[in-house]
Amino acid sequence: MKKVVLGFSGGLDTTYCATYLSEDKGYEVHSIIVNTGGFTEEELKTIEQHAYKLGVKTHTTVNAVPAYYDRIIKYLVYGNVLKNNTYPLSVSAERLIQALHIAEHAQKLEADAVAHGSTGAGNDQVRFDMIFHVMIPNAEIITPIRDMKLSREEEISYLKAKGVEMNFDKAVYSINKGLWGTSVGGKETLSSKGVLPEEAWPTQLTKTTPEEVKLSFVKGELQKVNDKSFNHPSESIQYLQKLAGPFAIGRDIHIGDTIIGIKGRVGFEAAAPMVILKAHHALEKHVLTKWQLNWKDQLAQFYGNWLHEGQILDPVMRDIEAFFESAQQQVTGDVFVQLQPYHFQVIGIESPYDLMSSKFGKYGEMNNGWSGEDVRGFSKIFGNQTAIFHQVKDSVK
Amino acid sequence: MKKVVLGFSGGLDTTYCATYLSEDKGYEVHSIIVNTGGFTEEELKTIEQHAYKLGVKTHTTVNAVPAYYDRIIKYLVYGNVLKNNTYPLSVSAERLIQALHIAEHAQKLEADAVAHGSTGAGNDQVRFDMIFHVMIPNAEIITPIRDMKLSREEEISYLKAKGVEMNFDKAVYSINKGLWGTSVGGKETLSSKGVLPEEAWPTQLTKTTPEEVKLSFVKGELQKVNDKSFNHPSESIQYLQKLAGPFAIGRDIHIGDTIIGIKGRVGFEAAAPMVILKAHHALEKHVLTKWQLNWKDQLAQFYGNWLHEGQILDPVMRDIEAFFESAQQQVTGDVFVQLQPYHFQVIGIESPYDLMSSKFGKYGEMNNGWSGEDVRGFSKIFGNQTAIFHQVKDSVK
Amino acid sequence: MKKVVLGFSGGLDTTYCATYLSEDKGYEVHSIIVNTGGFTEEELKTIEQHAYKLGVKTHTTVNAVPAYYDRIIKYLVYGNVLKNNTYPLSVSAERLIQALHIAEHAQKLEADAVAHGSTGAGNDQVRFDMIFHVMIPNAEIITPIRDMKLSREEEISYLKAKGVEMNFDKAVYSINKGLWGTSVGGKETLSSKGVLPEEAWPTQLTKTTPEEVKLSFVKGELQKVNDKSFNHPSESIQYLQKLAGPFAIGRDIHIGDTIIGIKGRVGFEAAAPMVILKAHHALEKHVLTKWQLNWKDQLAQFYGNWLHEGQILDPVMRDIEAFFESAQQQVTGDVFVQLQPYHFQVIGIESPYDLMSSKFGKYGEMNNGWSGEDVRGFSKIFGNQTAIFHQVKDSVK
Amino acid sequence: MKKVVLGFSGGLDTTYCATYLSEDKGYEVHSIIVNTGGFTEEELKTIEQHAYKLGVKTHTTVNAVPAYYDRIIKYLVYGNVLKNNTYPLSVSAERLIQALHIAEHAQKLEADAVAHGSTGAGNDQVRFDMIFHVMIPNAEIITPIRDMKLSREEEISYLKAKGVEMNFDKAVYSINKGLWGTSVGGKETLSSKGVLPEEAWPTQLTKTTPEEVKLSFVKGELQKVNDKSFNHPSESIQYLQKLAGPFAIGRDIHIGDTIIGIKGRVGFEAAAPMVILKAHHALEKHVLTKWQLNWKDQLAQFYGNWLHEGQILDPVMRDIEAFFESAQQQVTGDVFVQLQPYHFQVIGIESPYDLMSSKFGKYGEMNNGWSGEDVRGFSKIFGNQTAIFHQVKDSVK
Repeated sequence: MKKVVLGFSGGLDTTYCATYLSEDKGYEVHSIIVNTGGFTEEELKTIEQHAYKLGVKTHTTVNAVPAYYDRIIKYLVYGNVLKNNTYPLSVSAERLIQALHIAEHAQKLEADAVAHGSTGAGNDQVRFDMIFHVMIPNAEIITPIRDMKLSREEEISYLKAKGVEMNFDKAVYSINKGLWGTSVGGKETLSSKGVLPEEAWPTQLTKTTPEEVKLSFVKGELQKVNDKSFNHPSESIQYLQKLAGPFAIGRDIHIGDTIIGIKGRVGFEAAAPMVILKAHHALEKHVLTKWQLNWKDQLAQFYGNWLHEGQILDPVMRDIEAFFESAQQQVTGDVFVQLQPYHFQVIGIESPYDLMSSKFGKYGEMNNGWSGEDVRGFSKIFGNQTAIFHQVKDSVK
Repeated sequence: MKKVVLGFSGGLDTTYCATYLSEDKGYEVHSIIVNTGGFTEEELKTIEQHAYKLGVKTHTTVNAVPAYYDRIIKYLVYGNVLKNNTYPLSVSAERLIQALHIAEHAQKLEADAVAHGSTGAGNDQVRFDMIFHVMIPNAEIITPIRDMKLSREEEISYLKAKGVEMNFDKAVYSINKGLWGTSVGGKETLSSKGVLPEEAWPTQLTKTTPEEVKLSFVKGELQKVNDKSFNHPSESIQYLQKLAGPFAIGRDIHIGDTIIGIKGRVGFEAAAPMVILKAHHALEKHVLTKWQLNWKDQLAQFYGNWLHEGQILDPVMRDIEAFFESAQQQVTGDVFVQLQPYHFQVIGIESPYDLMSSKFGKYGEMNNGWSGEDVRGFSKIFGNQTAIFHQVKDSVK
Repeated sequence: MKKVVLGFSGGLDTTYCATYLSEDKGYEVHSIIVNTGGFTEEELKTIEQHAYKLGVKTHTTVNAVPAYYDRIIKYLVYGNVLKNNTYPLSVSAERLIQALHIAEHAQKLEADAVAHGSTGAGNDQVRFDMIFHVMIPNAEIITPIRDMKLSREEEISYLKAKGVEMNFDKAVYSINKGLWGTSVGGKETLSSKGVLPEEAWPTQLTKTTPEEVKLSFVKGELQKVNDKSFNHPSESIQYLQKLAGPFAIGRDIHIGDTIIGIKGRVGFEAAAPMVILKAHHALEKHVLTKWQLNWKDQLAQFYGNWLHEGQILDPVMRDIEAFFESAQQQVTGDVFVQLQPYHFQVIGIESPYDLMSSKFGKYGEMNNGWSGEDVRGFSKIFGNQTAIFHQVKDSVK
Repeated sequence: MKKVVLGFSGGLDTTYCATYLSEDKGYEVHSIIVNTGGFTEEELKTIEQHAYKLGVKTHTTVNAVPAYYDRIIKYLVYGNVLKNNTYPLSVSAERLIQALHIAEHAQKLEADAVAHGSTGAGNDQVRFDMIFHVMIPNAEIITPIRDMKLSREEEISYLKAKGVEMNFDKAVYSINKGLWGTSVGGKETLSSKGVLPEEAWPTQLTKTTPEEVKLSFVKGELQKVNDKSFNHPSESIQYLQKLAGPFAIGRDIHIGDTIIGIKGRVGFEAAAPMVILKAHHALEKHVLTKWQLNWKDQLAQFYGNWLHEGQILDPVMRDIEAFFESAQQQVTGDVFVQLQPYHFQVIGIESPYDLMSSKFGKYGEMNNGWSGEDVRGFSKIFGNQTAIFHQVKDSVK
């Protein structure tokens, strides 16, 4: 009997896959759910029970939160990555860590095949496919929904016919929650204009009194929040999310390029990620040199896009991570942020590595390091080539 | 008698320069003020009278608002330029158009010298010096405040001794207003932590009811606001500023690299600039291809930094502008923005060039353009090199 | 009867396609050959006769040499484009202009389909497919060799059975000649080590006495060679090729990334292209500013890669061309090159725009433009941030 | 008595400095020569004797060859750095390691001042100044030749008056030799046209029979030449230089941007560096992915320019080195090069990490990894956005 490992969320598509693969195709199905922070223990339990009811041979639940941080989110913070200057890659990043875990599971089980419930219309199919091609090149990739172009209705009638019991209602918005943010798609996001109504956001505004929060970074990683320590930086993110989420911070709509070439629009809320990224960036602006900031930005733009497109296993990503790691050596200090309804503000930073240190010259004030005469010479030389360019050019006419 | 052209704002430093150059140094002083949108007619009148009282031979007032837009701001919009992802370059850009006009004035008057009131501690001296070196290489550059390292107190006692009458009080915050934003420096911005108190912001919050505004772009330029047309895009900016300013939008603190190598912090408010930049970017995300967006970002980062550093006359700037101009051909459409107290949100866009057009495939829905099978093939080829890389690498071990 | 436009070279693969499409598939076949400089009038005549013998309805010969220069090569010169710093994109560029002409022909004939003879193993299939998808999205793309995975032997026996007469011998090396160079693949290039034997190169060494040649560029375009003018820059390239080719210059082996993710190796000879690119670059190094050179290099690297991958119709390519065009305004002057057996040397340049002009300061000699004191000040400010960085860092330990 | 550390080569300028500083200025002079591979033991001995004759308190000879490789050249190889695609930075790199050693010596001696013999007209003054500002910010920087604008004649008559004996003849060409190449400036290089005559090159052509050489790289470093091992990679460079130099390989003229904004031209010969860089690059093209090659090129261009401009202590350089280091993990293998008079050719490579490995698909041949159908799907998706762009654009007209 052939073994297939199936990425399983318990939703309609993967429920269809589990049933179809075991009942119609005769596979020994090993379902796996990779939790990136969006599921509660109870939900995971329910999903497991659902899987076994569908006849899977084994079901595996992976807590991928720490690995998700260590392999991906850490570098997104180092790079201050916001796709198109907007989107923290909440879902894109998540799919990759899920694919990596599914592939490792398939390796371990020596599975003949791997299956995912993606349709043929989105980004996720590419991410899953590519990581599977790289990591388990000999495993067949099975994608029933994509291959049979199944509609929601067809899936439901098939499952009902098979006696499967589950909630078949379609939600107005499709929601995906994880450590690095929650995406919300549907209705308004399906066209180029319109934002989600207040009530559609998973996290509602419940705090209205401004709060100040102190984020302590060590070499680029968030180690403490309001002086509270954590076992792992992923916990500091979750803790901050609890503080910042109720301010309805970090909501936005992203319109971006999908891997398959069309434009897609999605709503997201990501209070902790946005606060962390902006705080981290503020700290970097104080402690890094101009060209460190410049090259980090350029590399991060590529890194985010390439990650979004599922290319996490290209070795160039390791090389960029090495750059980021090196650049974080002085990114240590406290950042103070004020949380308010719908927005927040970085108030300032304190760091032993602060290059704005008054010990070495304050902007706008003269000091002992250099004189106006030095700057006069600097200006002359700094503009020398452009001056020559224009003199030469003018001499031709 | 030697002629000197003096950039003149009527403040303490340039008042000192005017007096010193004409009385102590025997120059024929030609003062000039270049208005970039921050002065009223009345203020300009008062400054002119002040100049003549100081004994200048001529005083010239230049309305540089349209030229400022045409030569600089237009390209900052095309490039969505925010220095360090924060600051619209309000002051940096202004100084350049001022220097360019002063240099042209000196050329016209065939002046022997040009003077500016910069100290030896800031960015502006470099900007003025460099543009003067390029445009009027034979004119001497005179900078009394920098050269004599004059303190505020020394200037005041000199002027009082000379019988000059003016307001000698020092404001808590130094404010610089222009078409592309207002900077506010002092007190809190002098250290790495702290934000301006509410009352320090020049524009106070006076609107609290959300308003929707419609911005109409034609080839990247803001042509209409709420369907109202203007004679020149600079007027559309000023009109939008009146609508958006009272929401206290676009306030922030920027910490950045000065030209002279130290870090500097400054507060700014820039309601219209921030709304325009974000609206323009949103439109671009709908109408440009992935690599247009990507290269625009990379070029714009450099463009903004190089402009900030006073290098506007480097011909590479013209080359980048040619790129930007080319990329704006389809950046035509309406952007809808909701203004709220302290923040705003882009609601969506409408454009004939919208690549999200439902005619050619909606994200998440299958269409006739391609099939799931095509994407399956795509994923295989797209990830091919990385797959080979890992197979080769694993085969070595 | 359905119309198909067939890209036709008269070789085995396209002979198969012509026969198969008209005889087995019942298409009205319109063959087209797009000459990019590699065919003589006689060869084109022979190919035409061959086509009609195979039963095509019409056969069209396009002289694409000027268009090839105007739409592609011009920009490769502007950008000094050498893929991986080695290969002038001889074949890649050629395929694109061929695909563009074929697509235009299909538009004109309102063809139902377009066919090309590519296999499933190379770059060309992607280039043809993509340009056809963009320009003639409603035309079916037919690729018999790829789809039926035909071997050489299968094609030959099919054609013999159909009574087709042609030379069925397989050459040791596959050669592709055009305006921008000749590629030579086979035997030694099929593995990672080995170069072509002397006798395998299409152009043999027949000149051994060094010759000096003078190339005159106007705004980046080669207008004269040894003071001889031409009707079109493409003719100046052909003229130079006649001078430089017999020196066996510009031979090399390129190992590069194919569009489909594997590495491929190919020999090429490109005497005129290499001389032009190096001469043009030498001129640019004299007349452009540092950052013009810098950004041109970065954009050109992308431009060459993206062109290689068939993406010539991405509008970002137009934007980059606008940058290049702008940067060529001062690239006017003469370049002197010495041709020798197997290599050449740029001897120097003469240009009114030469920034090395002794009028404005010679390197290594003091002048009136600036003093050692100015440079002393420059050094202090130029290294200021790094000095502060280290002082701050050392103060922490 | 104040201590000054003086960078000393024994030439006219530094002989002047030693005499002037000790005799006229009353400094305790500590001279130091940093050998980067250009001096023989005998020459160093002679220089030492010369120094003591001039009255220096101590003279120190540093063999900086291994450190030069470890801190700089290694990364130039990793990055395949050629400034403006031409110049291996022979002199620029050397000056930096010299400045670093001089500064360390000054730290050790707790010197009050540091002196160098640069004039006010070249690059070196900036490199020395900047590194001294960073490393020994409290030491005074003394530059007599620059400050007093001394001419050669003035220096000679001063020294003769002081009774100093040395060869006062001026060489036609100024030659600078080190591990990473030899620069030759003078006469022909002082204008924009002209190359050095054959006899001016320090290394003459003495080998005319082609030789094949095998270079073995381990993680990007040249470990063996023709299977011969070395104690340190710097020795492998020196060994290769002996093999390749007599072929008169690696001669060229570089025209580039100086730090002070003017253009400068210099001849150089660098047989081993050019062979190593091209061989290393060839190996990388076989073992790295497309985007590794791409980003390496971009970073290396900046790295080379920034190093050239003396900014080696900017921490961004460490970050880029971390990237390079990471990217070298698979750059292991043998490269075969044929040396011929005046030029050389890379024949091929052998590496366990070769991505062209026939095990995983040969270019131009079908294989089991993917099918023509996959590429067909790939082409459709890969060109999807551009196709949509043109359909949308055409629909507007």
